[in-house]
Amino acid sequence: MATPKRKGSTYERALANKLWSMGLAVLRGCSSGGGVRKRFVPDIVAIGPGFVLVFEVKYRSERKPVRIEEEKVSKLLEFAKRAGGDAYVAIKFKGDDWRFIPITEKASIVVKPDDLDGAYTLEQLISKYVSRSLLDFLR
Amino acid sequence: MATPKRKGSTYERALANKLWSMGLAVLRGCSSGGGVRKRFVPDIVAIGPGFVLVFEVKYRSERKPVRIEEEKVSKLLEFAKRAGGDAYVAIKFKGDDWRFIPITEKASIVVKPDDLDGAYTLEQLISKYVSRSLLDFLR
Repeated sequence: MATPKRKGSTYERALANKLWSMGLAVLRGCSSGGGVRKRFVPDIVAIGPGFVLVFEVKYRSERKPVRIEEEKVSKLLEFAKRAGGDAYVAIKFKGDDWRFIPITEKASIVVKPDDLDGAYTLEQLISKYVSRSLLDFLR
Repeated sequence: MATPKRKGSTYERALANKLWSMGLAVLRGCSSGGGVRKRFVPDIVAIGPGFVLVFEVKYRSERKPVRIEEEKVSKLLEFAKRAGGDAYVAIKFKGDDWRFIPITEKASIVVKPDDLDGAYTLEQLISKYVSRSLLDFLR
């Protein structure tokens, strides 16, 4: 039987594979083993031509608010700053598509299921970073 | 007792921590679990302001040639291309410092211990990507 944690990582892997299939360079953070405490390890980092996306990934089988503590937010922002990239919460409630919320300020975050109506879809997120003209040119 | 593989990952972690301490955003590839075969996962990716370094990491306790197969080289180059970055073999023989050899063409690589005399040191590698003037300005 899948534990909740295991289920979460299944969805995280699926998101990583999807980002890869879109042509990005993708890594899931590997937090097992000693020494990791010296560095912060995000759930997923996706790199495209001239942009870096740093993701905290949340999957929930129930439609309840999701909280991310200030300490984690702060580390995500620090990682994104080092990488010259942007940090996002990638969030998926059971049965829904992934949605993406920018992390911009050092404060704890609470995402309510209804907040996701205004959040980026995956396509909207990537369109922010890749120019339409380039895509049309390459097509 | 440490197995050779375990020893290698200890050195790999140490290199990741060193790159992090230099101010880069660093991830070690996490290749356990299902689904990874869909994506290629490099040993280490380090991201700085405007550059991405993709590393195949090799530690050897004996001074013998190190071989990297063409298939692996090809995947490293593909990952680097997606990320708009550069791929390197990071190699360390027991007792020596890390050295870095650029991966540029799709062919198997054999690194002999003597080849490392002309290879980048860590400092030389990073200096290729960060302008001296910026460092002096920020100091």
